[in-house]
Amino acid sequence: MAVYTEVGDDELAAFLTRYDIGSLVALKGIAEGVENSNYLLRTSGGVFILTLYERRVSSEDLPFFLGLMEHLSHRGITCPTPVKQRDGAVLGHLAGRLAAIVTFLEGVSVRRPQAEHCAALGGALADLHLAGRSYPIRRNNALSVTGWRPLLDASREGAERVAPGLLAEIDAALSDVEAQWPADLPEGVIHADLFPDNVFFLAGRLSGLIDFYFACNDFLAYDVAIGLNAWCFEPDGAFNVTKARALLSAYSARRPFKPSELDALPVLARGAALRFLLTRLYDWLTVPEGALVVKKNPVEYLTKLRFHRGATSAAAYGLDVERAPS
Amino acid sequence: MAVYTEVGDDELAAFLTRYDIGSLVALKGIAEGVENSNYLLRTSGGVFILTLYERRVSSEDLPFFLGLMEHLSHRGITCPTPVKQRDGAVLGHLAGRLAAIVTFLEGVSVRRPQAEHCAALGGALADLHLAGRSYPIRRNNALSVTGWRPLLDASREGAERVAPGLLAEIDAALSDVEAQWPADLPEGVIHADLFPDNVFFLAGRLSGLIDFYFACNDFLAYDVAIGLNAWCFEPDGAFNVTKARALLSAYSARRPFKPSELDALPVLARGAALRFLLTRLYDWLTVPEGALVVKKNPVEYLTKLRFHRGATSAAAYGLDVERAPS
Repeated sequence: MAVYTEVGDDELAAFLTRYDIGSLVALKGIAEGVENSNYLLRTSGGVFILTLYERRVSSEDLPFFLGLMEHLSHRGITCPTPVKQRDGAVLGHLAGRLAAIVTFLEGVSVRRPQAEHCAALGGALADLHLAGRSYPIRRNNALSVTGWRPLLDASREGAERVAPGLLAEIDAALSDVEAQWPADLPEGVIHADLFPDNVFFLAGRLSGLIDFYFACNDFLAYDVAIGLNAWCFEPDGAFNVTKARALLSAYSARRPFKPSELDALPVLARGAALRFLLTRLYDWLTVPEGALVVKKNPVEYLTKLRFHRGATSAAAYGLDVERAPS
Repeated sequence: MAVYTEVGDDELAAFLTRYDIGSLVALKGIAEGVENSNYLLRTSGGVFILTLYERRVSSEDLPFFLGLMEHLSHRGITCPTPVKQRDGAVLGHLAGRLAAIVTFLEGVSVRRPQAEHCAALGGALADLHLAGRSYPIRRNNALSVTGWRPLLDASREGAERVAPGLLAEIDAALSDVEAQWPADLPEGVIHADLFPDNVFFLAGRLSGLIDFYFACNDFLAYDVAIGLNAWCFEPDGAFNVTKARALLSAYSARRPFKPSELDALPVLARGAALRFLLTRLYDWLTVPEGALVVKKNPVEYLTKLRFHRGATSAAAYGLDVERAPS
């Protein structure tokens, strides 16, 4: 949850005069997203989300994120669309922050995704990857394979306090992943954080995707591997191969995997587990207790990493080699 | 800000079947109220607030609060109204908590109230007091004069860490207030926490009052004294007598003060300053750093207390004795 910056009624009213969305009816700080301050904004023109960008989000990246949401919306992806000011700008200043208004998406996130939710996610992820192909701006993924060892180094001293042996285990797994990371897979815009929190459902159907503030260019199949980590493990740590099969099958029905992507799935899944293990470990050790951000226990991703270390092929994720389109 | 309890989509859907408000469209945890978890709930039937009552709110008091909101709504006070379940109940269970759905109020709170806002507040407070006279349930005010010394005693050790001399100053002021506290003023239901956060405005007009979870029976003029403390000081600590006059004049136009209430205003104002000084001091010393509640600096209320100690009559608050109706 996060509302870091308070917005005054007077400055908000002034900000809204730049838009064609009517006058202020209500404003509620909402507990959504951890990087920015988010408000539910009601005006006489409708319901919107007002986002104030906090310091963790680089202002240089905002045109990429906002442009991407607009690009995807225009190509049929249900995601927040930036609302333009009268002069066409989508980014303004409010309460000392860069700020944008985006459309409100109906739906609620699912706390315990079932196989049908995983299938819906797989289809939506493929659609997102296809729609992102024509997006002209690039953003490198600072949290891809080359970004992980610096995170580990920064956490080296504290890692043993979290769990004995953790440091050595991560170190070994990371060395393997670095050595085996693929060099040449289909690339494009990925969401990079498509956890159940960021996917809305309404009456059993996927109704939208939110929170594009980690989106970047990387291997498309790496985004799928993030999805496997985020959606296909049970609360007790067990991998649910039925959910994985549902996710992967629905994805490949829209965007068939290349054989090289299927071959790489185990190492991509290990990499995705390491990425969240390392950022959670770093936050666990560095975010002060008084912060508004809820820290997530890194050990959950250690369990996931161990599962992936036992996976030798895409078959471990429920895909028959026969069934996988080439 | 506060969302202490997460609500699952499945349990929420089940909860909503008890109501006649349609199906779930969206749910957002909102940063409103510090005692409970609040969600903005959209259904096919409209927009509502879903509140989950956390442990700080006694379940025995909930019928008083919910009944009061209904009572006031029926008498023309714009405040959240509990939505009844099909069987007539207003209180249910959700996510392991007692829970209620109330109507959504339009409007936004004003960060820097001006004199016209203070006048609107005064009128609304008088209306609330008049409408509350016929409310049949009673709730004693645990945070009135007899509740303050135990708070001071509990903060005795830590008070000097907050500000040198603080303990002695509060002790002396509290002894004075205890000795001079009136015995016989008009009583009734008071809001007891009508800070600018809890008053909504829309297009310059007061559009509603929220957060009745401190409401109780006490001297009506004590509620006015809380309002003077909460609305009539500038950010630099200066008392704005124009705002106070606006508040008191608008109040007395709807519910004329008795002479005994005007005489008591300075001691009531000191008492109100002490009440918030003491609860903030106690929270400052006891609420852990990791808590989701934003702790408010108690020293703000020391400044206010000092102003009131210099006030010898209602004239200090901008009321001419001639103008005050008897």
